[in-house]
Amino acid sequence: MLHVDSTQTVPRTLPRIAETEYRERVAGLQRAMDIERLDALVLTSEDHFQYFTGFHSPTWLNLTRPRFCIIPCKSDPIIIIPSNNAFIARQTSWISDVRTWVSPCPSDEGVTLVADAIRAAATTFRRVGAELGPESRLTMPVADFLRLGTSIAPVSIVDGFSTLIAPRMVKSEAEVKRMRTIAEIASLAFERLGANMRTGETEAQIAQRLRVDILRHGAQDVPYMTGSSARGGYPSVNSGLSERVVRPGDMLTLATGSVYDGYFCCFNRNYYFGRPPDALRRRHELLWDATEDALDFAGPGIRASEVWRTLRARLQSERAGGHLRQGRSGHGVGLRLCEPPSISASDDTVLMPGMVITLEPSIAFEGSGSESFLLHEEDVLITDRGCETLTRRASRELTLID
Amino acid sequence: MLHVDSTQTVPRTLPRIAETEYRERVAGLQRAMDIERLDALVLTSEDHFQYFTGFHSPTWLNLTRPRFCIIPCKSDPIIIIPSNNAFIARQTSWISDVRTWVSPCPSDEGVTLVADAIRAAATTFRRVGAELGPESRLTMPVADFLRLGTSIAPVSIVDGFSTLIAPRMVKSEAEVKRMRTIAEIASLAFERLGANMRTGETEAQIAQRLRVDILRHGAQDVPYMTGSSARGGYPSVNSGLSERVVRPGDMLTLATGSVYDGYFCCFNRNYYFGRPPDALRRRHELLWDATEDALDFAGPGIRASEVWRTLRARLQSERAGGHLRQGRSGHGVGLRLCEPPSISASDDTVLMPGMVITLEPSIAFEGSGSESFLLHEEDVLITDRGCETLTRRASRELTLID
Repeated sequence: MLHVDSTQTVPRTLPRIAETEYRERVAGLQRAMDIERLDALVLTSEDHFQYFTGFHSPTWLNLTRPRFCIIPCKSDPIIIIPSNNAFIARQTSWISDVRTWVSPCPSDEGVTLVADAIRAAATTFRRVGAELGPESRLTMPVADFLRLGTSIAPVSIVDGFSTLIAPRMVKSEAEVKRMRTIAEIASLAFERLGANMRTGETEAQIAQRLRVDILRHGAQDVPYMTGSSARGGYPSVNSGLSERVVRPGDMLTLATGSVYDGYFCCFNRNYYFGRPPDALRRRHELLWDATEDALDFAGPGIRASEVWRTLRARLQSERAGGHLRQGRSGHGVGLRLCEPPSISASDDTVLMPGMVITLEPSIAFEGSGSESFLLHEEDVLITDRGCETLTRRASRELTLID
Repeated sequence: MLHVDSTQTVPRTLPRIAETEYRERVAGLQRAMDIERLDALVLTSEDHFQYFTGFHSPTWLNLTRPRFCIIPCKSDPIIIIPSNNAFIARQTSWISDVRTWVSPCPSDEGVTLVADAIRAAATTFRRVGAELGPESRLTMPVADFLRLGTSIAPVSIVDGFSTLIAPRMVKSEAEVKRMRTIAEIASLAFERLGANMRTGETEAQIAQRLRVDILRHGAQDVPYMTGSSARGGYPSVNSGLSERVVRPGDMLTLATGSVYDGYFCCFNRNYYFGRPPDALRRRHELLWDATEDALDFAGPGIRASEVWRTLRARLQSERAGGHLRQGRSGHGVGLRLCEPPSISASDDTVLMPGMVITLEPSIAFEGSGSESFLLHEEDVLITDRGCETLTRRASRELTLID
């Protein structure tokens, strides 16, 4: 299928997402709730809040105070938040029914207000959904959640996470613009970094320069910055950067989840300091070729598991002196760094236009001492006819630093 | 009691926290578990992991894969993590018993391994503690937690959050060094910002300049940056910065939770653009005076609620044309932006040397249109004889921007 690079310059200030779009998101959720016989969904986590209500602020880092949104099947959503969050709701959310309590109040941290709202909504099916299932994080104290469950009986609480996350897999035009923006900002920063790196710096110094560059070029935050370095291949792509000094003969990888208006990119880039052994060059090209196979193949109607098998087929047939590791080779990305689907053997999600996934084939091999590996990741938008990279496609040749 | 400013220059690279210190933390926890009749504690959240095991990495942003640490009452801790987190454990943790599974695996995302470890430990009291109570966040899917509870019966799971958080309130010398470092970096950046601001910029532009400056001067991350601006007083101190252009006659507040080696500072600074009305100057001085009262008063043996009453007494007696809002006026800070205790009417925690709290008195008043307020926050270390500000004490006079 067709895939193109998206290298156009992107504007840094995008219009706010329209209230009509939020209302459509809620209406779609309400249709799903009706089918699944749920009277309401209870939301507590930052990304669900932003997706359905617009409410967002760094105040989520404050764990003293929980926040709740009740989306009834038949009526408008209700936000239940600490009183000192009310301005945030006025500033960022389209929801008009905002109820507050003075927090901290450990004896009743919003629970009574939430129970009242659930009771008023749960009159048909006597079932409400909450964030309980795989990949979910209930963002309130569990003791309060259990107390809530008791106080609303006979209404029962079931898992609603899959219902909440399913519509989010397909991004709207406004969401894609945000993801294109952040992928491009980070891609260009990685390219500049390649031109400005030298041995003798620590991993942490190099990474901090990249972080600052991404921020200065329009990212709103860089919450995720990971990677590692070692001679001939690196040990990890998800660890924090260390005080290790990068030397000639080292491979360095850096990965970032940078953010624009809440939306993440998630990808890495690889750098070699000096003249690499042929085996290492071949491995990098193999990962690039496997990605190219998947980009040619991926598109609407294709399953996530089939994309995984396409990546795997190339790696398995050529190997380049490496071996394959278990696990997935990509994932959804959006208001979370990692969200469904998984690009894995067992995830049969059918790709649809508007989905954004990462492709991240990797290959492991014996390095200097312990096991090393290489990983190569791109962010990919599924389009009507195929797919498109949101990241600026890395070069097939390993990037060399003099 | 005695309080002093800490304005010395701080080094940017601190030695790692020693294994002996981690072992002491675990030993203290095990003594508390014995008293509370707990066979083990189950940890799932980032800050508890770092505090007791050293394990840390930005990979916590990936919500697909949970992580577990079991601390038995009578034996060494066990880390149970996805296989692609094993390097992070080797790199950052002193724990040798590291068990892994290949994730994602939604049908058994570590639950069997955790259940096995709990069963092996829970032979005396048949009770284990987990992060369930006020201010806790269980960092795994709740459906898996409920399944875990069933599979380990008759062993019961009770709240262990207060047991986990209590020892963390008193910071060690190594922790205080980190908190002093980040408070100083951010304080100096706020001071430089005051000298380099002008009207005509947006809130977001000003805040981003501050963020970059903090990073360039040695912070490892700036995950929390909030504030707002308005004519004569601001509406919020915990909202995200907006595209509002700052004009003459505006008050602007910026608050940051910046991070060094996982440890937060948490404070704000206030700026007025132009020549402020006398009432506004007086309100700022009143908040500063109230803080001064609390700094004179706070020290070992004093209760959090008494500090709250001290702040409140000054605000209540002078008012300066404002009125008081409900809620707390400060909180603990450490590996979390906000942690116990609360500086509030109902929190009777006795302050001890090594505790770090914020003092944040505020006063509300009628501004241009809706309600405005002013808030002033400092980070404070309780010492043997009194207390000490870790932040560079703000000036009593409101900072004016030409």
